Amino acid sequence: MKDVDGLDLPTYEDVEAAHARIKPYIHQTPVLTSEYLDDLTGAHLFFKCENFQKAGAFKARGASNAVFSLDDKSAAKGVATHSSGNHGLSLSYAAGRRGVPCTVVMPRTAPQAKKDAVMGYGGRIVECEPSTSSREEVFARVVEETGAEFVHPYNDPRVIAGQGTCSKEMLKQVDGLDAVIAPIGGGGMVSGCCLTLSSIAPQVKIYAAEPLNADDAARSFRAGHIIADDAPDTVADGLKVPLKERTWHFVSNHVTDILTATEEEIVDAMQLIWKRMKLVMEPSSAVPLATILKNRDVFAGKRVGVIITGGNVDLGKLPWMKN
Amino acid sequence: MKDVDGLDLPTYEDVEAAHARIKPYIHQTPVLTSEYLDDLTGAHLFFKCENFQKAGAFKARGASNAVFSLDDKSAAKGVATHSSGNHGLSLSYAAGRRGVPCTVVMPRTAPQAKKDAVMGYGGRIVECEPSTSSREEVFARVVEETGAEFVHPYNDPRVIAGQGTCSKEMLKQVDGLDAVIAPIGGGGMVSGCCLTLSSIAPQVKIYAAEPLNADDAARSFRAGHIIADDAPDTVADGLKVPLKERTWHFVSNHVTDILTATEEEIVDAMQLIWKRMKLVMEPSSAVPLATILKNRDVFAGKRVGVIITGGNVDLGKLPWMKN
Repeated sequence: MKDVDGLDLPTYEDVEAAHARIKPYIHQTPVLTSEYLDDLTGAHLFFKCENFQKAGAFKARGASNAVFSLDDKSAAKGVATHSSGNHGLSLSYAAGRRGVPCTVVMPRTAPQAKKDAVMGYGGRIVECEPSTSSREEVFARVVEETGAEFVHPYNDPRVIAGQGTCSKEMLKQVDGLDAVIAPIGGGGMVSGCCLTLSSIAPQVKIYAAEPLNADDAARSFRAGHIIADDAPDTVADGLKVPLKERTWHFVSNHVTDILTATEEEIVDAMQLIWKRMKLVMEPSSAVPLATILKNRDVFAGKRVGVIITGGNVDLGKLPWMKN
Repeated sequence: MKDVDGLDLPTYEDVEAAHARIKPYIHQTPVLTSEYLDDLTGAHLFFKCENFQKAGAFKARGASNAVFSLDDKSAAKGVATHSSGNHGLSLSYAAGRRGVPCTVVMPRTAPQAKKDAVMGYGGRIVECEPSTSSREEVFARVVEETGAEFVHPYNDPRVIAGQGTCSKEMLKQVDGLDAVIAPIGGGGMVSGCCLTLSSIAPQVKIYAAEPLNADDAARSFRAGHIIADDAPDTVADGLKVPLKERTWHFVSNHVTDILTATEEEIVDAMQLIWKRMKLVMEPSSAVPLATILKNRDVFAGKRVGVIITGGNVDLGKLPWMKN
């Protein structure tokens, strides 16, 4: 850990420590390739399949690192978060593996499937009203009552160090990478890539891919400061959240470019991956391929690591289904 | 090859020759596991992912063996079949790799998506009327005109030897298998398993899994002779065809049991695999898990290889979608 302008930021040593710590609880996910998609893009694509990760998403890495780096006394009080997406699942999973409580604060209006998934991994749900003020109030009460450790989905040095283990694995699995591309929402995965690659493979360029409908990171990148949008609407629902100061540090210092894709391009790319690679993955995970397809000149002939970030989709509500 | 009661049947030497022959054209597909499904079934399941195979199905193995075992003169005339499913795709793929023509006779009423898929792999489509007599007439004319070699989807010793390479790989990938289970339609994959396992791992039990709605193989197995149904109706559309004499030979001699599952059980198992393993696979490929779930006592505590036979589904017409 190092202090930069008052921010506690993880170092590559923290990634190495994270990897040693979480190895028993995560998968080394496979890297798959597709001749068809290579022909289509003109690039050599190496898909890192975090959809096969524990709890169905890369977030199991960061959550496991946060949970297993707590000392026994803190751990006994449990962990808490208010993410109802992959981070809530992953934190529940990691807490379950350590045998400590996990509380997830969720709006009472959240889909039952999401509540069931969290409970399926052993998490406890505390409901709030569907408003930011209620969420904050209920969450504060949970932490007050339980003494649980708050684990932020991405603006947390332990989480960023955990996500950094993904590109660390990929460097061992694929020789001679020219670039890595990952979707960007809050920037946890991209920050992990930045941390690892800038430390041990600085020749590898880092691209982030974002829905045009939620392009706050791309605009932040160009403006030179964080821009946060209010409730953007995109099919890539894992990517609606804004950058925060720790992820901004990594993104602003190490990312080569942030590319965007339209909703239609994202859904088309998602169908291509389902159809051709036989992978169930989230709309968010299709954004990188969507941007590669429309920026052929950037990636042509290059060996590109593409992070398939997660596979938790509602099979009854796929984006190409008619309602 | 050996002659048994006038039938030319492949031997394990043919499987070994097939494997050497087709290795450049097929994937050694990965074996994936799921802690969740192990807990649910009480067994140790090893999923052999032929949905990741070339052309999206195990049939690329048998088709490649048939195509690449032709001498140059025969090969130059091409190959032909009248399967519009995975075999038609796979034969087109294999012929394309050898650079020889492939003709697939298909009813003019077949879905455009199936025609596009065959053409996408370089196959030529000749349309017939949607009747058996028209199909046979048109097919005979194609063979007459081109001199193409007919490659049957399963009742062909070269095809069975090719399918036998799947369990040969699996034996190297998984230690101590107690059983292997595969879906049964015409019996090509199951025959390949029988051929390989009875030759080099006779302690491994072989189970076949079949839709109750198309249980002709199960009834044949019990009756002791082939029973063929007329146009059975099941969501597992790869499994509608009957056994033929070569596959019957292997099934009747080496299979321990044929288990069946209802349509609802098949779709439930398919959703479980999509949701939990993040694999896009066909309804046919879900039949083994469906039968394992309802025959827990047969598989409990056992190490079971489960063959995920293919991944070619119409993403716009999934069985849980409302029309």
